[in-house]
Amino acid sequence: MKKVAIIGATGYTGSELVRILTFHDQVQIELITSETYQGKKFSDIHPQFKGICDVELKSADDAGDYQPDLVFLALPHGVAMEYVKNWKDKPFKIIDLSGDFRLRSPKSYYTWYNIEHSYPEGFDDAVFGLPELYRERIARSRLVANPGCFPTGAILGAYPLLREHLIQPDRIFIDSKTGVTGAGVKPKAVTHFPNVNDNFKAYGIENHRHTIEIQEILSSSSGKQSTVQFTPHLLPVDRGILTSIYSIPAGTISNEEVKELYHRYYDREPFIRIRNVPPEIKQVRGTNYTDIAAFFDERTGNMLVFTAIDNLVKGAAGQAVQNMNLMLGFDEKEALEFIPIMP
Amino acid sequence: MKKVAIIGATGYTGSELVRILTFHDQVQIELITSETYQGKKFSDIHPQFKGICDVELKSADDAGDYQPDLVFLALPHGVAMEYVKNWKDKPFKIIDLSGDFRLRSPKSYYTWYNIEHSYPEGFDDAVFGLPELYRERIARSRLVANPGCFPTGAILGAYPLLREHLIQPDRIFIDSKTGVTGAGVKPKAVTHFPNVNDNFKAYGIENHRHTIEIQEILSSSSGKQSTVQFTPHLLPVDRGILTSIYSIPAGTISNEEVKELYHRYYDREPFIRIRNVPPEIKQVRGTNYTDIAAFFDERTGNMLVFTAIDNLVKGAAGQAVQNMNLMLGFDEKEALEFIPIMP
Amino acid sequence: MKKVAIIGATGYTGSELVRILTFHDQVQIELITSETYQGKKFSDIHPQFKGICDVELKSADDAGDYQPDLVFLALPHGVAMEYVKNWKDKPFKIIDLSGDFRLRSPKSYYTWYNIEHSYPEGFDDAVFGLPELYRERIARSRLVANPGCFPTGAILGAYPLLREHLIQPDRIFIDSKTGVTGAGVKPKAVTHFPNVNDNFKAYGIENHRHTIEIQEILSSSSGKQSTVQFTPHLLPVDRGILTSIYSIPAGTISNEEVKELYHRYYDREPFIRIRNVPPEIKQVRGTNYTDIAAFFDERTGNMLVFTAIDNLVKGAAGQAVQNMNLMLGFDEKEALEFIPIMP
Amino acid sequence: MKKVAIIGATGYTGSELVRILTFHDQVQIELITSETYQGKKFSDIHPQFKGICDVELKSADDAGDYQPDLVFLALPHGVAMEYVKNWKDKPFKIIDLSGDFRLRSPKSYYTWYNIEHSYPEGFDDAVFGLPELYRERIARSRLVANPGCFPTGAILGAYPLLREHLIQPDRIFIDSKTGVTGAGVKPKAVTHFPNVNDNFKAYGIENHRHTIEIQEILSSSSGKQSTVQFTPHLLPVDRGILTSIYSIPAGTISNEEVKELYHRYYDREPFIRIRNVPPEIKQVRGTNYTDIAAFFDERTGNMLVFTAIDNLVKGAAGQAVQNMNLMLGFDEKEALEFIPIMP
Repeated sequence: MKKVAIIGATGYTGSELVRILTFHDQVQIELITSETYQGKKFSDIHPQFKGICDVELKSADDAGDYQPDLVFLALPHGVAMEYVKNWKDKPFKIIDLSGDFRLRSPKSYYTWYNIEHSYPEGFDDAVFGLPELYRERIARSRLVANPGCFPTGAILGAYPLLREHLIQPDRIFIDSKTGVTGAGVKPKAVTHFPNVNDNFKAYGIENHRHTIEIQEILSSSSGKQSTVQFTPHLLPVDRGILTSIYSIPAGTISNEEVKELYHRYYDREPFIRIRNVPPEIKQVRGTNYTDIAAFFDERTGNMLVFTAIDNLVKGAAGQAVQNMNLMLGFDEKEALEFIPIMP
Repeated sequence: MKKVAIIGATGYTGSELVRILTFHDQVQIELITSETYQGKKFSDIHPQFKGICDVELKSADDAGDYQPDLVFLALPHGVAMEYVKNWKDKPFKIIDLSGDFRLRSPKSYYTWYNIEHSYPEGFDDAVFGLPELYRERIARSRLVANPGCFPTGAILGAYPLLREHLIQPDRIFIDSKTGVTGAGVKPKAVTHFPNVNDNFKAYGIENHRHTIEIQEILSSSSGKQSTVQFTPHLLPVDRGILTSIYSIPAGTISNEEVKELYHRYYDREPFIRIRNVPPEIKQVRGTNYTDIAAFFDERTGNMLVFTAIDNLVKGAAGQAVQNMNLMLGFDEKEALEFIPIMP
Repeated sequence: MKKVAIIGATGYTGSELVRILTFHDQVQIELITSETYQGKKFSDIHPQFKGICDVELKSADDAGDYQPDLVFLALPHGVAMEYVKNWKDKPFKIIDLSGDFRLRSPKSYYTWYNIEHSYPEGFDDAVFGLPELYRERIARSRLVANPGCFPTGAILGAYPLLREHLIQPDRIFIDSKTGVTGAGVKPKAVTHFPNVNDNFKAYGIENHRHTIEIQEILSSSSGKQSTVQFTPHLLPVDRGILTSIYSIPAGTISNEEVKELYHRYYDREPFIRIRNVPPEIKQVRGTNYTDIAAFFDERTGNMLVFTAIDNLVKGAAGQAVQNMNLMLGFDEKEALEFIPIMP
Repeated sequence: MKKVAIIGATGYTGSELVRILTFHDQVQIELITSETYQGKKFSDIHPQFKGICDVELKSADDAGDYQPDLVFLALPHGVAMEYVKNWKDKPFKIIDLSGDFRLRSPKSYYTWYNIEHSYPEGFDDAVFGLPELYRERIARSRLVANPGCFPTGAILGAYPLLREHLIQPDRIFIDSKTGVTGAGVKPKAVTHFPNVNDNFKAYGIENHRHTIEIQEILSSSSGKQSTVQFTPHLLPVDRGILTSIYSIPAGTISNEEVKELYHRYYDREPFIRIRNVPPEIKQVRGTNYTDIAAFFDERTGNMLVFTAIDNLVKGAAGQAVQNMNLMLGFDEKEALEFIPIMP
């Protein structure tokens, strides 16, 4: 039985980690922390857990005492880096769910996050935690940068085409639509119910931080510098990201070949399902699945790829547990075989 | 390993039964039937199950061949009774999720359902499948009439007060609000998105069929003839029933005593959680929990009880599995320890 | 052409006042104020008004300079009373949309609002602005206390029965369900989209401030001391309140007589529509209508009344304009003949 | 006072036409027809109109008797063409809200609608009813083909760039998201509340009929053959279409120039509002506005345009009334100066 700690209990990522890890047979949650609510019960903050997880919240300062094998950082960016820095000599492994170690360099981080990084050395160790691309490296790593929610769906959708150099890398249009939980647990005008309900809009155009994360990983994994036009939109739903990816073939290709490509890349992946029709976010809700459908439109000569994930699961906590399973040597699917809540 | 069959795969009850039973270690789904879609895969009808449950749908006529230990009837009322009748000499147990055997008599059934019952003898065998009231009888029964969704929340809320004769039995006001899945899988004007979204209304006032089910069970379980005013309302949500129950004390009582009463009745129940604040439907979503909060309002002298359930789980498929666990001798909680999907 | 001022532009009440008054042929909005945003344009705060109302926001201190005929106070309770006090000798009339002058006495105000009232003299002048009950007095008044949203629907529903002494005044159960705009424009945990969407709950049970407002007006208008059990619930919709009222007849009565009563009381009211089936909130959305349906249930011997309003229109800004029309001598319907936005 | 008839009262287009025309001072609705519901009142089918429009529905066969000046056809495609054919010698003008005369040729119609057109001669007369492009021709025409909902937002968004040859015409990616009313009033699986709520998906990819309508109008109005990749998605909202348009500049251009272009094209249009930030569908709800924001992204070298409309107003009935105003010589804005219902 391995021991884990969750640092930062109050957000959606924290509560999803507890929800998922509760079903894990080989891992025990030793510690859940919250600086704001220490002394309170976890179920005081997340009442749905009453009778399920009523443990007392502690301070992160106590983490060392619990001798965890692995620690999840469910903290805001800018904060997480401090913990990674302070704990750099600790014996436990770390999965950081913030954006602090996802980019390729401190310079890139500064450009897009507008924060001077306090632990640039961490970039050398950090592995981008997308198992479908970096399974081996994740298994060996000490520090995993868990991918952002948008990047997870976007990268998995575009990767096969780019990796095989089948599309032009400089004109990739990624139009994403996310549920509101992506904006976090803290009430803001943008998440105020009357501002979201029966509404829909684009936001963060041109400069959303996930743009660079998508672009860097697609570039480095395909070996070709890519330019990504990324536009997030806000859906009046809780969970789920649907990503529609438009691109231009680099040569001649048929719809058949496109479909065959995606099956070849992903049929053995435990959490990817290739669909013949465009996927729906509700069909992956509460699960670690990425549903993908890819098309070549002969009339227009364009490539279309659609992906659906649950932003809190495959886009955050579920992928983190998938990474943990790899890092601690468990079956990759352990605790993650949820069935979508539909409807 | 016990074998079960699900008769009627296309509705929400059918798909929830599959979702839940997939997690059951001691039961195997041998057969799923649909007369309309036989030959198709279960995941063709419920695409969220792709890769999870892709079995072929059969005809209910084949049920006998599979020698199930227990059969779930997930069929409309009026249809289910025919199966119960035809299978009355079969060796397997039956859990009927329709309304066909929930009432106290064929006469009552005729009055409220306006159908002549084709198998009145079934009423003698049928046990009302609410474990919190009838656990022992369910365990011994061959035919369980799984409770309606509204009655589950309403009865569990009012039962302790009535059983202890603490409220006047002839003035019980039950104001329920349900999600749309309660209306079934078939598109109708009443479930057309633009008619539901951003809308709210009462319906079926005075004559909803669940009225008599609530009233009969409360009367027989408390030993006092009750009269129930039941008003369902339609919420723009998928799942969940919140029931607000108003009643008048039969004598003097304090808020303390009311709270103590509910703890005494329900603290040992695995699927009831007593709350200090009014419950929320989202905090039981996807689970078999009934969350209950009861209050005596000293200013008005009235009694207030609120209950929250997931209409497809505790209000249908989850309760059916709970009943199955009792009937087949398993741990009552087996396969039912879900954590609410929140948010 | 009469001149009006709107004090407090940033809330929903403020923006609805502008939306409605824009259609008024005999009134001109001279001034819109906001202490927080003075200097900004109204359409900066409410972007839907771009090109429609782009006037500059001023400070309320400037109100006197504009010599308005009537001033709307769209301010929080506790703040509004200060304006009424300071402006007590001004020549303009005031419609206060807060709760500061709705109750019968400063003492009652203190009990339920927990604030010492700074202008108790105002209670002598203030008329409760429900035209269907107090049309004449409103027309003559200088200070109108515009009713709360819940009280509007609740009082209009119960009034005919109580006024005619047809129900027991001490057991009135009022189960209300409101849209989220009732909680105001400021983001809070309770209005955070993921906490509301696909959710439903009761709140403020036993002590919501509208309880006393309903109870006092029903008591004074019927001449019999009433006791009201009022329970608000939060709907995942923007606008609308559905109120379900349960009561017990004081003598024998028929369903026919009940229906006739409501027609007699309300058929000549321009903004009340008597329905034969339970009303729906979407069918009054964006309008000043109150839709009402009343039933006597012969089986149970109980009385059922349902009312639907738009909380921001008949429950706030629309009713305020209706009051203004009475106070300034215009046609009561002027600027208020909206057609419901459905769907 | 001119007289109009609405042929086809039961759909959303029909009820929106009545809602809008009620506010028109110079037009009277002489006749509303429904073959299915003739003899019933309009408010029986659309209960929100109780007390507002209670006229009796007639048969379309009676239309001639009423000597209307203009007739709105609010009928399905394939049906509308028969009326246009039969009424080709009638003295009244026709606005057809179906897709029957929107395309450039009967051949194109056959290819995309898979129906042999029964009145190909109509294509010679029909003018595409988008006032911002064809104002003069609409004013002179006898038969107006009212644009589809998606094409309205898509064409208005892309037109200035294409007309000025500023983008490559063969790689235009139009990613649209629509509310459910776009699917019509008839309940279907795709509009069943539990299938839409908390869900999101693309549909009709590659072959939605609005694709060819967009492409043909953009090609003919710009004078350059365009190829359009059009992908509709289904939002869990009632009304509104947000369209995100991605394209590739034909030469060098700056963000400044793009913004200046849209102001130049549209600042004098009464129903177009140029926004500096991406538009939101709720800010045009219930109105005839098209909100547009255009950007050139210097980092990627791509062009981004976003448009928001209400699919039932500017996308259908509102635009039809705008066309009627032009055809009958009224002020183009008459009856259309609604203020968005927000929230």
